[in-house]
Amino acid sequence: MTNVMTNNLKHLISACENQEVTNFVLSPGSRNTPLALLLAERNVNLTVAVDERSAGFFALGLAKASRQPVALVATSGTATANYAPAIAEAHSFHVPLVVLTTDRPQELQEIGAPQTIPQAGMYTTNVKEALTINVQEAAADVTEYIDYQVQQLVHQTQLAPRGPVQINLPLRKPLLPELGTPWPVVVQQDFGHLNTQLDAASLAQLTQRLEHKRCLITIGPTDQPLPMQLLQEVADQLNAPIIADVLSSVRGSVSTVPVQQILKLPEQIQPEIVLRFGGTPVSARLLPWLKQQQIPVIQIGSDHLGKDHSRWAHTSYNLSATDFLQQLATTDIRGAAHYRADWEHSFQPTPAADQEQLTAQELPRLLSHLAPEHQLFLANSLTVRNFDQSFAPAHPMRVHGNRGANGIDGTISSTVGVAANQHPTWLVTGDLAFFHDLTGLQLARQTHANLTIVVVNNDGGGIFSLLPQAQAPYFEQLFGTPQVLNLKAAAAFVNAQYQRVTTTEKFRKLVQEAWTGLRIIEVSANRAHLPAEYPEGLG
Amino acid sequence: MTNVMTNNLKHLISACENQEVTNFVLSPGSRNTPLALLLAERNVNLTVAVDERSAGFFALGLAKASRQPVALVATSGTATANYAPAIAEAHSFHVPLVVLTTDRPQELQEIGAPQTIPQAGMYTTNVKEALTINVQEAAADVTEYIDYQVQQLVHQTQLAPRGPVQINLPLRKPLLPELGTPWPVVVQQDFGHLNTQLDAASLAQLTQRLEHKRCLITIGPTDQPLPMQLLQEVADQLNAPIIADVLSSVRGSVSTVPVQQILKLPEQIQPEIVLRFGGTPVSARLLPWLKQQQIPVIQIGSDHLGKDHSRWAHTSYNLSATDFLQQLATTDIRGAAHYRADWEHSFQPTPAADQEQLTAQELPRLLSHLAPEHQLFLANSLTVRNFDQSFAPAHPMRVHGNRGANGIDGTISSTVGVAANQHPTWLVTGDLAFFHDLTGLQLARQTHANLTIVVVNNDGGGIFSLLPQAQAPYFEQLFGTPQVLNLKAAAAFVNAQYQRVTTTEKFRKLVQEAWTGLRIIEVSANRAHLPAEYPEGLG
Repeated sequence: MTNVMTNNLKHLISACENQEVTNFVLSPGSRNTPLALLLAERNVNLTVAVDERSAGFFALGLAKASRQPVALVATSGTATANYAPAIAEAHSFHVPLVVLTTDRPQELQEIGAPQTIPQAGMYTTNVKEALTINVQEAAADVTEYIDYQVQQLVHQTQLAPRGPVQINLPLRKPLLPELGTPWPVVVQQDFGHLNTQLDAASLAQLTQRLEHKRCLITIGPTDQPLPMQLLQEVADQLNAPIIADVLSSVRGSVSTVPVQQILKLPEQIQPEIVLRFGGTPVSARLLPWLKQQQIPVIQIGSDHLGKDHSRWAHTSYNLSATDFLQQLATTDIRGAAHYRADWEHSFQPTPAADQEQLTAQELPRLLSHLAPEHQLFLANSLTVRNFDQSFAPAHPMRVHGNRGANGIDGTISSTVGVAANQHPTWLVTGDLAFFHDLTGLQLARQTHANLTIVVVNNDGGGIFSLLPQAQAPYFEQLFGTPQVLNLKAAAAFVNAQYQRVTTTEKFRKLVQEAWTGLRIIEVSANRAHLPAEYPEGLG
Repeated sequence: MTNVMTNNLKHLISACENQEVTNFVLSPGSRNTPLALLLAERNVNLTVAVDERSAGFFALGLAKASRQPVALVATSGTATANYAPAIAEAHSFHVPLVVLTTDRPQELQEIGAPQTIPQAGMYTTNVKEALTINVQEAAADVTEYIDYQVQQLVHQTQLAPRGPVQINLPLRKPLLPELGTPWPVVVQQDFGHLNTQLDAASLAQLTQRLEHKRCLITIGPTDQPLPMQLLQEVADQLNAPIIADVLSSVRGSVSTVPVQQILKLPEQIQPEIVLRFGGTPVSARLLPWLKQQQIPVIQIGSDHLGKDHSRWAHTSYNLSATDFLQQLATTDIRGAAHYRADWEHSFQPTPAADQEQLTAQELPRLLSHLAPEHQLFLANSLTVRNFDQSFAPAHPMRVHGNRGANGIDGTISSTVGVAANQHPTWLVTGDLAFFHDLTGLQLARQTHANLTIVVVNNDGGGIFSLLPQAQAPYFEQLFGTPQVLNLKAAAAFVNAQYQRVTTTEKFRKLVQEAWTGLRIIEVSANRAHLPAEYPEGLG
């Protein structure tokens, strides 16, 4: 008979596996020894990351790219507190994480024992559920509870609105599990696959509101898969232009119009109604403009629902984009004739001329030519705004960012998580976001990521130059914060290739050539020369 | 008339200053702009640190070394979550921090606004108080409340048991304060200086328990100032040997005996009663041994009180070491005659012979010869245990470590905080703790710290070789976790001097020579060659 702890932890791991957890991210310690050894024996996809903050963001990126829940495993103490930033982002952007925090047993709480901090409930409302399970109690009910409840919790992470859960695991010494004993078979819970539809009355009301109207479709940041063909069909049916956020991953799959056009739209072709999908747009002007023009917005989504800080979407439907579009496609509803064509004719495409000198503003256009299998991650602050303006790939492409809480933390680690599928991956980041997550570089090296990091180095906080304090005294000390980073040495630290690129010609070649492993590309930028209107106003 | 926000924030800053906050640590962002600009105008001691996790530990180190509360100032969102590890350590080790988290206003909560996470109460029981203050309400009562309540909160951080507090500050745009307007005078609250004494009955009982007994004094880790002369006088009066933890900063000021002697103590000179000061000892054997031998322990302290995970100190007195020793010194109590001499005669000092080859085990002895003005910080895991065994300076010296929650995170940043007083400072750390806090290196450079970092590089988690899993399968993958760090490149990244030292002779010279700026010294160590008995058993 396997010992109680070993048996129950095997049940816990198997319950996770039953609900699609295939990736585990472990940061080594003493208290999580039994989980570590059992996960290794089980031969799961296991990444070992020393820095828990970096591990948290790595798991976040992995969950975003794979669209599967990812489990984190920490030892007790401040280790678990290092997950807090990634968990806050996962909460805001609806990313499924299963956070397994090992803990000291109850008799070592608040009594001077080492590596012991209050862990139960430590992530407050950033997790959907927080539960403590004592796996060392020898009762059949406990084992059955683990089988059942852990599957429920993992399923919770995938149930809209999605988000992380915490399972806190107090463990008493001895911590060595029994290896080589049989694994249990845990009965798999089946949650089915549900569709949601508007009822007849709501559907009738909706079609009435859309019929013959100038409809606009907007799609914000999302990790969720969108049915691209269906989206195009419905847009065609409605004659609706689509404004797709750079982080929607829709650009290149569907015909879209640039977000900045909306501000210069002739009045007679302003939209009369908007269907809004996804999270808060990167563009800070879109939602306020719709409100200002009093254009009704219908928000659709099971994640991000009700999140509208313009407080203007008075209609919100709690169903997935796919369910909604499928239902709409079955109707014979039509939008205003020629609306999309009228919009498109209002704007003359101005082909951008090549600048010889490479600037940050050129990067979106140049990276639009990446090959289809590539993935892109965009850092917050200036980078993602810049790309939202002019990134236009010719084919479908996954584009990621941490656009829930919009922090500059964990950028490299999140990208390494995205790159765990071994697809060639690009990160574009400013120097401060790069600096904030140095340990992520080591994780890139360790996981053999095929990753190119483009660092737009303006030596400090470029975005602050666009805020009112740009002219204030003390600016450079408080906001500019030049770090004078030696990126070549950073590359040497992790054995990465390093290049400084100054011409568009050279950068275009980089985009086209194949590579493997880790590269750091430095692009110099000058904060003083940011165009006054670039990018559009900040939130 | 200054605008409401500006006026109230000036009151808040002045209230902090009234209660001994002279150091502010700011991480730049948009939402904390008004505080940033006003702090700069006020010309406080202001450190700007881009990575909030590093900033948190820097403030922790600064507060430990200065014994004053230090204020942290963050922008909204995940920035604030990055403070969580340092706050957990501050809670456990009783370090006074005033955590000012700026926030989005109430109308932007949970509604899709960027950089917005639930901040009120986010540090759970790791802060003593958590308060939200709206500084933009134009009511005289609010200003008066700030004057009063902020001083109360700052005082809370210094009131035993000491610890951090959070003040959450929602701020609505516009965020630019009015600069150049007069600063208010805030009425300073006076909390006096209190002494605590045992009452007559308790004192009589105590003296009865100590009289003619073989008394032992133990002093655990603490940042609090201990009255060294008084301690020596009381020890002399009691004839009591003193076991002083390496993190007590007592060694070199007072005559002490090594902790490891207790395990080999002849039975007839075992102590009959113990006076225990400070936090949980680094040595994991001391408290269990006292309990096993059934030697009564009297715990004294206003911080760390009741923290005894051996659950053996059934007498605990809630007063400071100074108050207690002063009271004891006024009595004519005597311990067993000759006890300390008997103890000392039981152990022949064995002068350590110089090894030509430098090993990690040699470092405590070599660094015992540091000049008096130097400061030392010891990383957790193997390093601090190693130094607890054999660090013996010949003169008073401050020695620091994060020995509340015992994490390996934030080690460099905490040390840089200690080094902010510009005294020459040494950090001894393993390679994993060094790696965990890479951004702290940049803070060392930026603050012009005079800092030597000795990295004992055993390429991974050395301590796990001493745990039961050392013989388990998967060991290297899960616990060894070799990072193959290129420390020379890390040094180049922050423009630090770098040396690899292999001989004791060379290291001794380093200890003696003067230096300024940042140095990284690599000492190679071999996990496979750790002595079986080194260091004493882990907790």
